[in-house]
Amino acid sequence: VINRFAFIGAEAGTWRVTSQKALSGEALDEISHLDIVAFQSDVSRAPGNWPLIGAKSNLRYTTRTELNSLRSRQEGLGRPQATRAALIPLRKSAAWWDLSQDERRAIFEEQSHHSAIGLDYLPAIARQLYHCRDLDEPFDFLTWFEFAPEHTRHFDNLLERLRRTREWSFVEREVEIRLERAIHG
Amino acid sequence: VINRFAFIGAEAGTWRVTSQKALSGEALDEISHLDIVAFQSDVSRAPGNWPLIGAKSNLRYTTRTELNSLRSRQEGLGRPQATRAALIPLRKSAAWWDLSQDERRAIFEEQSHHSAIGLDYLPAIARQLYHCRDLDEPFDFLTWFEFAPEHTRHFDNLLERLRRTREWSFVEREVEIRLERAIHG
Repeated sequence: VINRFAFIGAEAGTWRVTSQKALSGEALDEISHLDIVAFQSDVSRAPGNWPLIGAKSNLRYTTRTELNSLRSRQEGLGRPQATRAALIPLRKSAAWWDLSQDERRAIFEEQSHHSAIGLDYLPAIARQLYHCRDLDEPFDFLTWFEFAPEHTRHFDNLLERLRRTREWSFVEREVEIRLERAIHG
Repeated sequence: VINRFAFIGAEAGTWRVTSQKALSGEALDEISHLDIVAFQSDVSRAPGNWPLIGAKSNLRYTTRTELNSLRSRQEGLGRPQATRAALIPLRKSAAWWDLSQDERRAIFEEQSHHSAIGLDYLPAIARQLYHCRDLDEPFDFLTWFEFAPEHTRHFDNLLERLRRTREWSFVEREVEIRLERAIHG
């Protein structure tokens, strides 16, 4: 099993970029298309730019009760009607990572309701988190979302709610890339 | 800041191997010396063998109360008298990683007392954990310990206690390498 995936910005690809903006911190070089492929080996690249690498990993905060709720409602990636996507690379501050596990959990859920907010948008918004802090990447997370065009406003609302939380006060770099499916499997 | 480190087995190096054994699962190619250096780039190697790569990362289970106890007693790596070391690469089962965060925490501490056991051996045994599951490595963790020769029995006892815990029933591969300092800084 390969855990790491490469997010490749290129001239052509499965997903076409419709918008790209930096919300916090430094921007990323603009790309026109994106593909997500299993990681092969470290490639030469400008520091802090494309491709981005992230790993599917175990859950870090979710309790069994929350997990059962999420699993009973969520749907997978690759649904034919889910022709819209978003890639949101995020980095949190050193202050976040210096917290103990119980302190991070309390901010993540008891104060910011991260899982509970996500649950409100299931099954419309499908989601996959990739971790990259341990990979010496320029971000800590790459979050990937897929949804149907008619759920775009739902997705906008999800982001607005998350960005108002206390958890987001620890976000020091955030880029938002919106995409639409260019190649239909 | 580079988070990843390479554990390089070679013919010469800072640490000389005094014993190497597989406790669970497959063995690792035997080495005579070991160096730990900042990771540069992926090197060609036989799958599942040297060098091993691991990343210093954030805490995954430790609460603020536990962290304060540990920090008040622990000492750092590189003490002149700490001329003995151990490298213990570990992999846990898929069943472990499929658990929710609260289930893993309960096994780790409330049932297995992992941090509490470690605390009993401070400051004699210094320790650094490296994570490697997200790096597609053959192990999930590389644990590095340093201690003075007169604390070798303490260290043996620490390992015996940890290996009797419920947490260890999830360990599916474990190699133990004992070392002594060959080059004095």
